[in-house]
Amino acid sequence: MIKISFPDGSVREYEAGISPMDIAKSISHGLASKVLVAEVNSQKWDLTRTIDTDATLKLFTWEDKEGKETYWHSSAHLMAEALEAIYPDTKFGIGPPIENGFYYDIDLGGKAISSEDLAAIEKKMRQLVEAKSPFIRTEVSKKDAISYFSEKQDPYKLELLEDLTDGQITFYQQGAFTDLCRGPHIPNTGYIKSIKLMSIAGAYWRGDEKNQMMTRIYGITFPKQVDLDAYLEMLEEAKRRDHRKIGKELEIFAFDDMVGQGLPLWLPNGGIIIEELEKLAKESEDADGYHRVVTPHIAKEEMYLTSGHLPYYEDSMFPPMEIDGTKYYLRAMNCPHHHKVFDAIPKSYKDLPYRIAEYGTCYRYEQSGELMGLMRVRSLHMNDAHIYCTKEQFAEEFKKVNAMYLKYFKLFGIASDGYKMRLSLHEPSKLGSKYINAPELWKETEEMVREVLINSGVPFEEVADEAAFYGPKIDVEMRSQIGRWFTLSTNQVDFNSGNKFGLTFKNANNEDETPLIIHRAPLGTHERYIAFLIEHFAGNFPTWLAPQQVAILPISDKFMDYGKTILHHLKETGVRVKLDERNEKIGKKIRDAEMMKVPYMIVIGQKDIDEGKVSVRIHGKGDVGSMPLEEFSQHIQIEIQERAIEHLIK
Amino acid sequence: MIKISFPDGSVREYEAGISPMDIAKSISHGLASKVLVAEVNSQKWDLTRTIDTDATLKLFTWEDKEGKETYWHSSAHLMAEALEAIYPDTKFGIGPPIENGFYYDIDLGGKAISSEDLAAIEKKMRQLVEAKSPFIRTEVSKKDAISYFSEKQDPYKLELLEDLTDGQITFYQQGAFTDLCRGPHIPNTGYIKSIKLMSIAGAYWRGDEKNQMMTRIYGITFPKQVDLDAYLEMLEEAKRRDHRKIGKELEIFAFDDMVGQGLPLWLPNGGIIIEELEKLAKESEDADGYHRVVTPHIAKEEMYLTSGHLPYYEDSMFPPMEIDGTKYYLRAMNCPHHHKVFDAIPKSYKDLPYRIAEYGTCYRYEQSGELMGLMRVRSLHMNDAHIYCTKEQFAEEFKKVNAMYLKYFKLFGIASDGYKMRLSLHEPSKLGSKYINAPELWKETEEMVREVLINSGVPFEEVADEAAFYGPKIDVEMRSQIGRWFTLSTNQVDFNSGNKFGLTFKNANNEDETPLIIHRAPLGTHERYIAFLIEHFAGNFPTWLAPQQVAILPISDKFMDYGKTILHHLKETGVRVKLDERNEKIGKKIRDAEMMKVPYMIVIGQKDIDEGKVSVRIHGKGDVGSMPLEEFSQHIQIEIQERAIEHLIK
Repeated sequence: MIKISFPDGSVREYEAGISPMDIAKSISHGLASKVLVAEVNSQKWDLTRTIDTDATLKLFTWEDKEGKETYWHSSAHLMAEALEAIYPDTKFGIGPPIENGFYYDIDLGGKAISSEDLAAIEKKMRQLVEAKSPFIRTEVSKKDAISYFSEKQDPYKLELLEDLTDGQITFYQQGAFTDLCRGPHIPNTGYIKSIKLMSIAGAYWRGDEKNQMMTRIYGITFPKQVDLDAYLEMLEEAKRRDHRKIGKELEIFAFDDMVGQGLPLWLPNGGIIIEELEKLAKESEDADGYHRVVTPHIAKEEMYLTSGHLPYYEDSMFPPMEIDGTKYYLRAMNCPHHHKVFDAIPKSYKDLPYRIAEYGTCYRYEQSGELMGLMRVRSLHMNDAHIYCTKEQFAEEFKKVNAMYLKYFKLFGIASDGYKMRLSLHEPSKLGSKYINAPELWKETEEMVREVLINSGVPFEEVADEAAFYGPKIDVEMRSQIGRWFTLSTNQVDFNSGNKFGLTFKNANNEDETPLIIHRAPLGTHERYIAFLIEHFAGNFPTWLAPQQVAILPISDKFMDYGKTILHHLKETGVRVKLDERNEKIGKKIRDAEMMKVPYMIVIGQKDIDEGKVSVRIHGKGDVGSMPLEEFSQHIQIEIQERAIEHLIK
Repeated sequence: MIKISFPDGSVREYEAGISPMDIAKSISHGLASKVLVAEVNSQKWDLTRTIDTDATLKLFTWEDKEGKETYWHSSAHLMAEALEAIYPDTKFGIGPPIENGFYYDIDLGGKAISSEDLAAIEKKMRQLVEAKSPFIRTEVSKKDAISYFSEKQDPYKLELLEDLTDGQITFYQQGAFTDLCRGPHIPNTGYIKSIKLMSIAGAYWRGDEKNQMMTRIYGITFPKQVDLDAYLEMLEEAKRRDHRKIGKELEIFAFDDMVGQGLPLWLPNGGIIIEELEKLAKESEDADGYHRVVTPHIAKEEMYLTSGHLPYYEDSMFPPMEIDGTKYYLRAMNCPHHHKVFDAIPKSYKDLPYRIAEYGTCYRYEQSGELMGLMRVRSLHMNDAHIYCTKEQFAEEFKKVNAMYLKYFKLFGIASDGYKMRLSLHEPSKLGSKYINAPELWKETEEMVREVLINSGVPFEEVADEAAFYGPKIDVEMRSQIGRWFTLSTNQVDFNSGNKFGLTFKNANNEDETPLIIHRAPLGTHERYIAFLIEHFAGNFPTWLAPQQVAILPISDKFMDYGKTILHHLKETGVRVKLDERNEKIGKKIRDAEMMKVPYMIVIGQKDIDEGKVSVRIHGKGDVGSMPLEEFSQHIQIEIQERAIEHLIK
């Protein structure tokens, strides 16, 4: 008998040679029907592979990252089997699972295939699913492996084999297809229910542009058709909501070749959104006692040698500019400048917590292939602030920062299942290498952060070995309306920079003490946050954020004067309103305002003038009736002032 | 008889051989007593030098730049005469007039003198003034000149002589001192009434650090003692108001070695002033239909080759950063980025005037020796905007910009004699070299600008040959409270960049047309404007600009609760207020608030609580009595809202 230990701490005894699938069945048939892969003694394990010794066991289903990965990895093998059936001379590169689905890089020997061919491959895959072929694991000697792929004339697998150690090589075979593969896999192809091949792209073998260009086929599979349907619908919706598309249509931002890649120009409509976000940040930060500072975008090399960005972060920085024999760098973050602001005037404990904020612009070098709309850029406007405090003040300050996050979540309609906080911790074995060597401080601050999170009742997960080198951090991921996750914000503890920059304050005993520093950016960068908001709202910003809030649309020129009266009235109250003075049909005026996603339209005809009212339309909703101008005006003002996410007028 | 033409167009006849002084006497003895130097046929001319042919004549007094220059140039000779009398072996370099006074660079043969010696030199100068020695002009052959200075063993004058052409060399002699000099000079040393030698400095011969270090003595002279007294008083006041001194005391900005020279860090108090100025700008610009944009601080080389900044402005730019084989430059101005914003979306005549504004940060390379506080920096936050308009719209737009200037002058208490507008025009002979070759456009736009200025009734002067290469411009100089002039703002016409960047709009006939562009920056840069405001207000900012507006000073801890009530009340209304919670005597609290130049102080004692009032002090003025909190609160809110320059509470 062997002892199997489970994650909940329980231990059961089984006959040696039992498989994880059998163990699952012994627990419950519901579990057995859902489980996809196992982990035995921290090693990924096929469900059908036998266990011969005492072991710890974890079982993974579709709900787990490990379950999905295995499912998609097996799907890549299934696609390869189909490809080999259709194109017998295909040579195979690698076929891993990815964030959404899988791909396989193949060499069709010069044969070109297009997206039209994908249907046939899908069809073949569905046939092979019917066969429910088991994935069979075999341990192979290196010699046998080489001989197999030599015979098959597959240069890619032979190249991969070169790097593998004899005795650690396995093949997986299902149906007529055999692959060099570490595994694990799902029990058989019958598990794969819903299949969609997405697209074809070119990819260099091993990502090196000096190598052979291969054909990459992307696909995705799901255990249920409804899940595939939902996924495809989400993709369609994401395409409709793509911030690049909407950003262009709504004239929010643009790129220009002469300015450079990854350097967005914020057009007037983007300028308004930026200004509203900054106003929001300033208001929240003023209320919480932050001071605003303004610092240059460059500094001398010495500053970044002191902070450690040079050389550790150099690859992400722009190259230096040399002046009078000194190197100056464009900053990639605001922290060192803020430390210098702290240091400019002597501080006492009475000045702490000292909170300084700046919507600072930073510049980071990203490879041109990595740049993507506003999501990955080279110039970033960061909602940055640094809080210098004593150890005693830390928990309170960190809590306040988290409260600010929660406030923003609510404001943007992010439900409590719409964000995740990831608490990244250090890894003790890497003290002194990846992490600064202050074990006590690590323990203490991690415990402080954990406590704050528990006390605030926010959902969070802990991630080992992902802290910043100077302290633990929280990263916040937010889910847009259509379910895509964005990593947007950060909140970090820093017990290192204070020392590096020699920052001190006089404590109550008139001794010099080094402050703890909190780095925080709840609204992340304008670039990424606005990309998120565009997708989240599909461009239908809440009224307070909408570049144009009201469109006044006279039915004909006769009503232009009344239109101007309304225009001036609303402008006076600070509403962003435009009067459509064009000589166009009212249908066209409405269509154009709808296209620009203006939340409110006021259509003016004779009846409105006679009754002294305004007829209100709401974007995407149509006519909502007429009301006195004063009533409309008050409603919209309150809606803007409260930064309401729903229209007050319905 | 010869004909003398005067600037007013009149012509008079005189005997040949008459001097300008005699002509002045023939007009009025008042004029003759004031005149210092003349210009004959566009050549500067001693008052005593004879005129032998028909000529145009201008006469200059102390009120003219030319008059002051000559006066100070002669004063330099007077100082040289005194120096030679006291230190007979002195060798002389050059001794020109400067903006305020004059200097002479001398070589004392290794002898060191200090500011203590200046009194003796001044005394000697006053003696020589008594002699009323005439300045005597002699034309000298190069040979004789060389022989004179060889005998005198003056290597500097001999070196200067090398570059001079025989036949064009003159000596000026007064008393025992003879100088190589082009002149002209005032009639005699008796004109020089009030003398002050200011300081001693070192200066390399001809400004080249490879040359001999000489001793430079600075001095200034005036025709009246009261003028000298006023000048010295102004200098003292300027020292008290020095923006570097006050900027430090009031914690407005700081510099840091690691960040770099000329790169100010704006501390929280500076951040507030910046924010108030930006709010002011945004309000005025919103009201005038400007859009706000946000653009990156860098762009590709190609952009600046297109604009012409490369190579023409390269020396003032930071060196490039090379990325992926492309050079990127930190921008030295915002214009090209704004042109790209204009260009991002197709425009029609209906979109014009298109006005885009940005408080854009620019970076300019200034030599480290030129850097001075906030006045000369390397990072500049510019109150920038560009207006794209048709030729027909130009006058109206330019007028509106000027109206904005006038609004700001009033706001900052600049009286109508406190600013000068300089209209800089092109020089027709330099079309195609210094100025773009579009003679008609120059004529047209210069006339348009002139007309706007005349119609707005603002005082202005015209300056030839100082336009931008792309069009005429107006520079605005403002005088601070103590009479020092600052060049702060600019308003320029540009009929060139539109073409260079291929900017177009569809005109009413659906044809492509190039817009005219107005570059404007009424509030200049934060750096220079705030330096000006600090000096102008001696740090006593009007309440709306003051970093802290109210200090609440409880006489003892007993009154702290009432203090907190006042604090919260005022904070609610948006007033920047702090409560002094320190355990200090009230005298100390008041002194500290006075030192930080907080406009209003509220001192709280038992009587205030009993009466439900607040006792108000005003900075620099003392107690102004007590009043209900509500009354104080309303007054200060109005004062802030109206951006009043005087206190409403007196």
